[in-house]
This record gives sequence, structure tokens and C-alpha cells, in this order.
Amino acid sequence: MRICIIGNSGHGLTILPELDRRQDIQVTGFCEGYPGEPNRTFRQEVVEKRQHKVRWYHSYRAMLEEERPDLVVIDGIFGEHGAMTMEALRRGIHVFVDKPVATQLKELDELEAVARNSSARLFAMLTMRYEATFYTARRLVEAGSIGQLRMLTGQKSYKLGKRPDFYRDREQFGGITPWISIHIIDLILWIARKRCISVSSLQDNHYNHGYGELEMTSLCSLQLEDNILASINSDYYRPKAAPTHGDDRLRIVGTEGILEVMNDRLTLISQDEAREMELMTPPDLFADCLRRIEMKDFSQDMDGIESTRISLLSRQSADEGGRLLFREERMGKRSFSFVLEEGVRNYAG
Amino acid sequence: MRICIIGNSGHGLTILPELDRRQDIQVTGFCEGYPGEPNRTFRQEVVEKRQHKVRWYHSYRAMLEEERPDLVVIDGIFGEHGAMTMEALRRGIHVFVDKPVATQLKELDELEAVARNSSARLFAMLTMRYEATFYTARRLVEAGSIGQLRMLTGQKSYKLGKRPDFYRDREQFGGITPWISIHIIDLILWIARKRCISVSSLQDNHYNHGYGELEMTSLCSLQLEDNILASINSDYYRPKAAPTHGDDRLRIVGTEGILEVMNDRLTLISQDEAREMELMTPPDLFADCLRRIEMKDFSQDMDGIESTRISLLSRQSADEGGRLLFREERMGKRSFSFVLEEGVRNYAG
Repeated sequence: MRICIIGNSGHGLTILPELDRRQDIQVTGFCEGYPGEPNRTFRQEVVEKRQHKVRWYHSYRAMLEEERPDLVVIDGIFGEHGAMTMEALRRGIHVFVDKPVATQLKELDELEAVARNSSARLFAMLTMRYEATFYTARRLVEAGSIGQLRMLTGQKSYKLGKRPDFYRDREQFGGITPWISIHIIDLILWIARKRCISVSSLQDNHYNHGYGELEMTSLCSLQLEDNILASINSDYYRPKAAPTHGDDRLRIVGTEGILEVMNDRLTLISQDEAREMELMTPPDLFADCLRRIEMKDFSQDMDGIESTRISLLSRQSADEGGRLLFREERMGKRSFSFVLEEGVRNYAG
Repeated sequence: MRICIIGNSGHGLTILPELDRRQDIQVTGFCEGYPGEPNRTFRQEVVEKRQHKVRWYHSYRAMLEEERPDLVVIDGIFGEHGAMTMEALRRGIHVFVDKPVATQLKELDELEAVARNSSARLFAMLTMRYEATFYTARRLVEAGSIGQLRMLTGQKSYKLGKRPDFYRDREQFGGITPWISIHIIDLILWIARKRCISVSSLQDNHYNHGYGELEMTSLCSLQLEDNILASINSDYYRPKAAPTHGDDRLRIVGTEGILEVMNDRLTLISQDEAREMELMTPPDLFADCLRRIEMKDFSQDMDGIESTRISLLSRQSADEGGRLLFREERMGKRSFSFVLEEGVRNYAG
């Protein structure tokens, strides 16, 4: 299997463990995600340490044309994930792309159509599904250990540190909600197995250490089918002295118990007991992607599109200051209505 | 000082420590909050243990007329807090009332006008302000220990257990948001010292063990001045095996640090260190109320009205499915506009 890689800006190097396990995978080409993108980690890990013979490109189109890989790892500048993904899918090349798979709703719709018509498949790097805590939590929910799901609340909190310049620019970066909150949005949709019927979000980009348009906080409220409530709070304010880079959390409230992931631990409080749960071993993210392609198991390949869509709609809700409502169309294809600030009525407060 | 008490359904007996400390307080009358309200705790604690000579009433109006107390403790059925409070304020009797101070917005506006025109003062039982963790957190925020406030997220999770019948009825109970979430809403407003500029909430009353209209989950998103974001998630699903009745939390994100209350502990992560903070000793709730009356310190006596208003608007937002926006009127008196679902536009999804 021949693979090419575009960019080195996100989770692309989650392919490394599988590169080590499988001798039949050859990385044949690398294209920078944007002019001047640092690629030292890629160079060290793939070229020097693992001795892949890589041709270097400045144009990903030229690389795909020249190398004709079986699969491309897309880890470029976030605002170009969509174009890069469509280019590959149109050529029948499988895609393993970092989330969000696009940063504009219109482009996402186009990408979805391309994906549905392509012989190749699209897999998003929904990395948190493959962390033992969240993976085990989902299995326990499936097994009925907390009864009926009623509310899910999650958190991402990161140290800001030094970020690439493109983080300053909404068009290139996409925003904190599609870049960070999307992980929890995805976990929530994946665990609840329900569709989202409304989103209402807030975000802010003040006090951002001069990082242009970069938002530092984001708060998303999702209403899922069966009126399951969900919220996600994300921020880039995790202080330097914090013991870890990130503070990821998820609390899952069911009618018969509460599961919670915090500090890389999973606890369950049921009607009978409160205890820390032993963690299951999830598969490797990229191994799972390859397995699905080889087994033709495409049950999850649209999940990245859906989680991207909800995150972009959350961003839109925050930008426009309203709540977005979804409704089902007769055709089964989804459309939604947006609650605007028109039609306001006064309240004598 | 002569005081009377109406009802025994909430936090009224937070007066006990002060009854013990001050010999000049006499409880002279008790009126049930609703016909058949259990009052065993009141009887045991006030009449038997502390030997107050109490006259018993079925009508709080008759009691206020007859006893003419200096202060009345209002702990009746929640839907009647407003009427009871106005009755007392109109008679010039100070009020120490459980939150919410009213359960309807129209009644709350009327109550606010009565309070502004009364010689007597209104104090709400904002009990969580007087817990050492939250009290200390506010002091640390005031002292600048986490820089500029950017996001506050809080939680209330309770065991449902057995509740009085009136919890089944929205009109009598008021709802989970004005009864439970209000505590965190109040803490957020009190700590941030900012006004709320929009609310968007969700709630649900399925799987409620036959408790009629009682909501089991509530999720409120508040946008404060300076675009400080806030959210509150509340539920009645805390499982039987949980070690405590409630699981109260508050996480306060600032530009220079994060404060967090969880498990009755307060931790601070700053740029320099991560540690558990020593807790300050807050004053007693009722002692503080009496001190304020005696010192004529009325700086906080409208806070209960404000926190009640935000909680009732959150409930309305959830009931109507939109986001409520506030705006400042030229007169300085506040009014707000409500974003309705009219004016929707379609999105070709």
C-alpha cells in the first residue's frame, strides 16, 4: 500500500504505530500543507527513523497525479482540508483526513456529495474515539450500564503555548469550535447515536495573546433527538503550571447511572456502586481506518462529515447570535432552519 | 427581634445557628406553606429543642397582621414566594425568603417595584454564596488571582429521592432551573459582577419517575457583559450509590488561571502553580442578613431578584426554544428582546 501525506499541522502522524506494524505500507510522497510549514517531525519520524523513500512536493495536486497513492493522509492547513479531500476522492484515492474535514458549510455539502459519489472512502481523524477512557465509556453506555442517556457535558481545555501563524486567520484556521470542540461534539454524537436537532453556541476571541481572530473560549449547547441535552466548553486558557497539556472531560448522565471521564480515568456511579472502571483497549486509529477499507466496512465513514457539520453550525450560531434548529425533510435529506433575530418581541422588563 | 416563619419546604431552617447565637430573636408565629405541609423538622428544632413559644396559623396574612414581626422567613411552596414576599414588604416587614423569590416574570416585576417602594428589605437565601469553597473562590477572583474572567461553568446534580407532591406541578414548583440552577446562576453573576446579555437554555422532563411536570435536566448558557461565557448543567439523576446527596461544581476560567470547586474542595491552577487552596470562613447566611439590616447595608438586597429573573428567563428560553437577548434602555432601566422562531430562513443542507 502506497500512501502520500499532505502537511504536518495536526494529527497526521497518528499513522506512525501502524507504519511500524505493517511492512507493506510505503510513504512515497510528502507535500507541505502550506508554504513554509515546519515538517521537522515528519522528516525525523518518517524519513530518518523509518527510512521511507519520500519524494517532496510543493503541490498536492501534482503529488497525487504523480504518485497515484492508494491513500492520502491529509494534515494540511485546516481551511484547505476540504479542497484537498475532494481532490483525492475525485481521483479515487482513499482519504485519512484530520478534522474538521472542511471549514465552510457550503464546501462541506460539496464534499459530502463528492464522497457519496467516489469509489474511494473518507475517514476523519476522530482521535478521541480511540482513547481508552472514551472508548470504554461508549461500550458501557451500549451495554446499558447507565440506562437511558439524558445529558452529556464535555470539556476541552488546552495550553495555548506557541501556535502557527495560520491560527490567527479564521479562514485558514476555521475556529476553536471546529478545531477543538469538534472532538467532544463527535464523542457525544457517537456515544448517544442520536441526531442533533438544535445548536446554540457562544464564543469569544478577546485576550488571545495577539493571535488575531483566534477564539479562546467556546460554549456549545446541543439538543439531540429524544431531548437529550449536551454541552461542550472549550478554552485555550489552561495555565502553564497545569500538570498536562489538555484537560479533557466527558460526563454522561443516564437514568440509571453517571459515567465520567476526567484526568484520564473513567468512573461509574450506578444505583449500586461508585467506582473507577477498568479500561478496555481500543484499536489503533489508523489501523482501524485501514481495516475498514480492507473489510469494506463503511459504517462510520460519514461520521467525520456529520461532526464537522455540527461544529460549523455551532460556529455559525455563535457568529450570528441565535439558535439553529434542524428539521427533517420528507425526502429524508436533512435541512434546517435558522432562528434569526428578526421577529423579536419586547418584554416590559 | 420578633420573627415569623412561613413554611418548611426549603432552606428556612438556615436560621437555626443564629437563633442559637442570639438570645434576642424570638420566633413568635409559624404558618404552614400549604395545607398539609410537613413541619416536623420545624417543630423539633424550633419549638421542642429551642423552646420558642410559637402561635400556629393557617393563613400567613392573618399571622403577619396578628404578630406584626420585624422579619418574616418565607419558606413556603415555591410558587407562592412572590405573593408572600409582597404581602410582607407592603406591611413594612423585612423578608428572608428562599430562592426563587417568584416563579413568574410578571409577578417578579411587580415584586421588584414593591421592594423598591418598601421601607422593609428583601434578602434571598442565596445559600451557596455562604459555602466556604464558593466564598473563597469569589475572594480570589476579586484579588485578581486568575486575571480577567472569561468563562464560568457550573453544575448541580442531586439525588431525586422522595419529593413533596407539589414538585409535580410547574405552577407550584417553578421548575428545576429556578429551583436548582439558580444557585449557580447566582454564583456566576455574583463572582463575575457582570450583567447577563443573553440566555439560551434547554430542559427536559422525561424519565422523571412519575413526577408530573418536574424537569430532570436543565442546561443554561449565559452570555455576560464583556462576552464572558457561562453555562450551568443541572440534573436530578445523581444515583443512589453516590457518596453525597449533591455534586456541586464551579470552574472559573481567567486569563491567568483557573479556579475550580469540586468535591467541596477549591483548586487553583495559575501560571506558576497548581494547588488546593485553604478555605476562608464565610459569615453565616442569616447572621449576614441581620447584619445588613442592622447596618442598613442594602448593597445586595436586589441580587435575589436579579438571579431569579435570569433563571426565569432561562426557563422561558427552554420552554419557547429560542435565545433571549437583553439590551439596555436609554432610561437605564433594563428591558430585553426575545428571539422567536419567526423570521427563520432555510439553509440548503
